[in-house]
Amino acid sequence: MSSAIDLNCDMGESFGVYRYGADEEMMALITSANIACGFHGGDPRIMRETVVLAKKYGVRVGAHIGLPDREGFGRRYIQMSPNEVYDLTLYQLGALDAFLRAEKMSMTHVKLHGALYMMASDDLALSKAFAEAVYVFNPSLSVFTLPGCNTSMSAARLGIRVIHEYFADRPYTDGKVKMFGWTLNEIGSPVEIASRVAKMLEDRAYAGIGTICVHSDTVGAPAIMKAIRDQLLHVVDPQE
Amino acid sequence: MSSAIDLNCDMGESFGVYRYGADEEMMALITSANIACGFHGGDPRIMRETVVLAKKYGVRVGAHIGLPDREGFGRRYIQMSPNEVYDLTLYQLGALDAFLRAEKMSMTHVKLHGALYMMASDDLALSKAFAEAVYVFNPSLSVFTLPGCNTSMSAARLGIRVIHEYFADRPYTDGKVKMFGWTLNEIGSPVEIASRVAKMLEDRAYAGIGTICVHSDTVGAPAIMKAIRDQLLHVVDPQE
Amino acid sequence: MSSAIDLNCDMGESFGVYRYGADEEMMALITSANIACGFHGGDPRIMRETVVLAKKYGVRVGAHIGLPDREGFGRRYIQMSPNEVYDLTLYQLGALDAFLRAEKMSMTHVKLHGALYMMASDDLALSKAFAEAVYVFNPSLSVFTLPGCNTSMSAARLGIRVIHEYFADRPYTDGKVKMFGWTLNEIGSPVEIASRVAKMLEDRAYAGIGTICVHSDTVGAPAIMKAIRDQLLHVVDPQE
Amino acid sequence: MSSAIDLNCDMGESFGVYRYGADEEMMALITSANIACGFHGGDPRIMRETVVLAKKYGVRVGAHIGLPDREGFGRRYIQMSPNEVYDLTLYQLGALDAFLRAEKMSMTHVKLHGALYMMASDDLALSKAFAEAVYVFNPSLSVFTLPGCNTSMSAARLGIRVIHEYFADRPYTDGKVKMFGWTLNEIGSPVEIASRVAKMLEDRAYAGIGTICVHSDTVGAPAIMKAIRDQLLHVVDPQE
Repeated sequence: MSSAIDLNCDMGESFGVYRYGADEEMMALITSANIACGFHGGDPRIMRETVVLAKKYGVRVGAHIGLPDREGFGRRYIQMSPNEVYDLTLYQLGALDAFLRAEKMSMTHVKLHGALYMMASDDLALSKAFAEAVYVFNPSLSVFTLPGCNTSMSAARLGIRVIHEYFADRPYTDGKVKMFGWTLNEIGSPVEIASRVAKMLEDRAYAGIGTICVHSDTVGAPAIMKAIRDQLLHVVDPQE
Repeated sequence: MSSAIDLNCDMGESFGVYRYGADEEMMALITSANIACGFHGGDPRIMRETVVLAKKYGVRVGAHIGLPDREGFGRRYIQMSPNEVYDLTLYQLGALDAFLRAEKMSMTHVKLHGALYMMASDDLALSKAFAEAVYVFNPSLSVFTLPGCNTSMSAARLGIRVIHEYFADRPYTDGKVKMFGWTLNEIGSPVEIASRVAKMLEDRAYAGIGTICVHSDTVGAPAIMKAIRDQLLHVVDPQE
Repeated sequence: MSSAIDLNCDMGESFGVYRYGADEEMMALITSANIACGFHGGDPRIMRETVVLAKKYGVRVGAHIGLPDREGFGRRYIQMSPNEVYDLTLYQLGALDAFLRAEKMSMTHVKLHGALYMMASDDLALSKAFAEAVYVFNPSLSVFTLPGCNTSMSAARLGIRVIHEYFADRPYTDGKVKMFGWTLNEIGSPVEIASRVAKMLEDRAYAGIGTICVHSDTVGAPAIMKAIRDQLLHVVDPQE
Repeated sequence: MSSAIDLNCDMGESFGVYRYGADEEMMALITSANIACGFHGGDPRIMRETVVLAKKYGVRVGAHIGLPDREGFGRRYIQMSPNEVYDLTLYQLGALDAFLRAEKMSMTHVKLHGALYMMASDDLALSKAFAEAVYVFNPSLSVFTLPGCNTSMSAARLGIRVIHEYFADRPYTDGKVKMFGWTLNEIGSPVEIASRVAKMLEDRAYAGIGTICVHSDTVGAPAIMKAIRDQLLHVVDPQE
């Protein structure tokens, strides 16, 4: 991915009869899809369909590892031991990998979801358990995470490639992202978001950002991602 | 496995705080473990622990693919489309495979569980979907199943190695197994079972039996498996 | 409800972050809401919100009893013993009743959902188990079901009031409803549906129909229900 | 219950094929059963069977309200809003109540389970939500909880009868119970436990203790409860 910037989005979060997120629209715009693995969202059918959709658009596929909490969509903190994080990471990595294998594709990355993303960022032992699971499963996977957090350090320590991400649809204050409790006003219009992203990429404080995330359930997510894509000159060709 | 006879048992069916089956005792006696994958039984922790246990005893590991029904332990028939069987097979194969990869082990076989075992045996379209999922995941896996059933035919048609199994702890009438509604009286003591197994292996009607199953939740399962093991001269060395 | 016709719809089938059905629009049009109880759809929060919505519109509330299968939305047949049907009916009746009690409301009716609706219609033992559960819970509840089916007979035998229903958004042939595999073409426009309903109500073959159902997930459900409501002169006042 | 001391135990925590706890042995010894409601443990069948068992032994029945986490048995903290606690309490109260109604019994009390017990004890808003749900469901229920905690205060404020409990199978230091991380050594033999309980009941510091709990999954739970029962002169007759 060299100097090019990756665009990622959470995909495959539907479940049974329930539809969630504008997956097809987003898939046409992104370069990396983080696919839910049946814990916080998704189910075996949705996983297959989403992998096939990513293949159709030539998008890289990663596992979006969530807490075992469909009702709370993986957004409620659940007390987890390092062993539990290790086990649920392996389980979900494997489950998604089977659908990729069936389509003769390879997994490229992994990202934690929702509350688990923040839990590992904030807790060294949990981040180590997560990184260890990734490492024993496939040490060539990239990990998407916040710069400077425990997940980033724990993965790097094992020699795993870390790609730092910037949340285009969340407000930042002094370089810190506000993940919860933000308003649409704070994030602005698609054009405002895109220009903020462009400015960020030129800012030394954000050196090292390798991927930009827009959540599929943010209002107007496709328009936001489209604006960002149009703004960036160096958009990576997902086929390269 | 040449002319040797394989001994298999369902393992890893505990869940959370709930213990089920005499896994450690049985693991010491068998040559192939069919490990539950978190649908009818098992969970990520139990899967890891059971894989580690199989490694300790040098036992081959296969995936025991079940219906999504913990409360019914995968024993209630659930209406399934071929696509649903394909998807749930891939999901479970992948999930278990991740724990094997973490222990630098390889999966050797796959077996359907409970109602799904019978559903695929009886329904050509379901058996094809199952075989297709096994094939795209790893065509070198063996499939354990009843001789002459749809699962056997569908797997063989794709070039998958089929190992026919005999249920030592179930009564047979005219070569047909009685899976449900049997009594302990009908199956007899461990010694009686073992001598029946020995006789079966010399019977031309059972030519082609490659593995013998004792269910871990049959009363006295370890004693039954021990008696069979002692009776057979050609027990495979699991390390070979 | 005397000679007036009741209009019923399945409500509260959302789950967690997932929205399903045009509940608020439909609630304004119907006289009886069948609320999902957390098995095929719904969860405790959705149940509370849907009960409050029914209260706001003065709509009668019944329990919509489903199979324990969120992923299949209660539409896949699952092998059930009479005891299992008895137990899951009681559990769901009680769970919904608590939310009604909290709002000082009373449950008026009960209806089976999806595959379970058909299973009990077709199987005497299951229908008896369902009726028995309703009876011991509250013998003054009405049961909504197809005319002439096992559910109708089993409920009537216990002295439970049975209200026969007509599915406005399903095609009928010779008085038999086609629940699955129908097309939008077969059911026609809202106006066509409404006039078919009006004609049915004058047809002696349909004597005894007491409630008309439109499924909340049929395309254009609110328009269909509105057309029926406008067509009927004897619409019951939900407050009466 | 006047001056008599109540003896309570968690019951009905089995699930599907999984057995948990010595329910029948304990039921013969206790005066109040806290029955799991299908969230942390139990399922509709187990609930029915446990209610019938309590009836057989003339034991009072209460709802044991747990977190939606079977895999963690309700022992992992899960971030919950007050609304979520209100909703899950109502749901579980209602579900259990249906089985009591079917047996013409009445619920007498309610107790939080596992992590939720501690969460409400420690968090005023959660304890208020719990107490409110109990109140709107049935204000004549008693609440079992720790003396001096938020749950006790919030229930009392609504006029709900509070029965303070002492955990016989947990060590206490300076009047504070050590719920997790204790050893069998710390709690001692059944006879030691029983004499500690007797001494506690004469201690002014423990004035107001109305019920004594032994967990059904503590090693030797029936022997412990039996020793306590034998020690106490004022054991309540569960029939009175």
